Amino acid sequence: MRMAYELYYWPTIQGRGEFIRLALEEAGADYRDIARLPERKGQGVPAMLACLDGGATPQAAYAPPVLRDGDMLIGQTTNILLYLGRRLGLAPRAESGRLWLNQLQLTMADWLTEVHDTHHPLSMNQYYEEQKQAAMLRSADFRETRLPKFLDYFTQVLLNNRSRGQYLVGAKLTYGDLSLFQMLAGLRYAFPQAMARLAPEYPFLSELHDMVAARPNIARYLQSKRRIAFNEEGIFRHYPELDG
Amino acid sequence: MRMAYELYYWPTIQGRGEFIRLALEEAGADYRDIARLPERKGQGVPAMLACLDGGATPQAAYAPPVLRDGDMLIGQTTNILLYLGRRLGLAPRAESGRLWLNQLQLTMADWLTEVHDTHHPLSMNQYYEEQKQAAMLRSADFRETRLPKFLDYFTQVLLNNRSRGQYLVGAKLTYGDLSLFQMLAGLRYAFPQAMARLAPEYPFLSELHDMVAARPNIARYLQSKRRIAFNEEGIFRHYPELDG
Repeated sequence: MRMAYELYYWPTIQGRGEFIRLALEEAGADYRDIARLPERKGQGVPAMLACLDGGATPQAAYAPPVLRDGDMLIGQTTNILLYLGRRLGLAPRAESGRLWLNQLQLTMADWLTEVHDTHHPLSMNQYYEEQKQAAMLRSADFRETRLPKFLDYFTQVLLNNRSRGQYLVGAKLTYGDLSLFQMLAGLRYAFPQAMARLAPEYPFLSELHDMVAARPNIARYLQSKRRIAFNEEGIFRHYPELDG
Repeated sequence: MRMAYELYYWPTIQGRGEFIRLALEEAGADYRDIARLPERKGQGVPAMLACLDGGATPQAAYAPPVLRDGDMLIGQTTNILLYLGRRLGLAPRAESGRLWLNQLQLTMADWLTEVHDTHHPLSMNQYYEEQKQAAMLRSADFRETRLPKFLDYFTQVLLNNRSRGQYLVGAKLTYGDLSLFQMLAGLRYAFPQAMARLAPEYPFLSELHDMVAARPNIARYLQSKRRIAFNEEGIFRHYPELDG
């Protein structure tokens, strides 16, 4: 019997960990979300921080999420998904397909960083309120130029793959579809007005969002307590003054 | 006989393309830097832009660099290096080593994005001069908190691997070492004062920088016209007011 996967990520936000959670949930994999388990049993946030301590952990990651699979300890969201993809049946078999999927996942990671920087353009070490004026300028640029560019790009990827079905890559669901769902769900939460205005131009992305949300394992997960609600400590934050 | 690799990247800056160039140069690979070749022969920037046109290119990248290897067209810097690593003898054979290397490369990519944002914290579509005040705030945060954190992290990685030699991963040079050299070279260019002040605390990183610079193929490359000089259109830019 294989040991359960162990995910180490902040316990109160979706954040980057959510891209891993969605893959594990879709696949029905056995996993433990360690930082959400009790400290008194050696779990919780201290167990997560231990994974990041290079003095104690030879291949410590720079930041969470981290995945443990037996002896393997893996950091960086896209790297974890690269590792899990084939094992969970959520990536193509051929190297060319896996590289293309990884490329799209990396593009979503860039997009996600830009979302983060809409509310923290000056410093990760200061509160939002201390950089609100800069955040309003950065958000306007994001909404007006960056957001449509990414939505256009992923629409084109879907259309170019359309002969093979409704997925980003190949003829089957991959972790890239799950991640694109998460990007769209998060953007709708953070920028409801901007996304509502743009929605009519991106019907294929809305279809993909709904297709993923309706998958039995994902639908069950989204209804469960395991799905942390979006909130203003995560990457996707709803500040009305940044939307519009 | 194999066809030459084709690199598509902006012709006047080191930028993200430089991480690919260094790997190809170290390996002595046959490659063509397409956007630096004549437009009248179907090369130059138009050839690069064609790779990014999803209407014409089924697996178009979101942004350069892009590498063509025969039928394969690959985007995203870390993904290109993942592909090239084994082929150029610049990555470990075992999957665990390749994932660890990819993880470190992704961490450098995050670091590079933070460097970019020191001079463009508000918008990629505006000039530096239009966001100079915000850039000064972001740069102070970068110099004081982010830069030491990344330097500490990569020092720890080197120390944890020290029993196996002077490299980041395993007992041989990998593309990760080349990329760390590039990060350090770029940071010294962009933030000479901050880096000079920090240098005594990071002797192992200075050693790695010098070791890479002294490799015969790299030393020859750095002296050649193929190495574009750092400049204020690239990612590493020297603006004295952002240093200190």
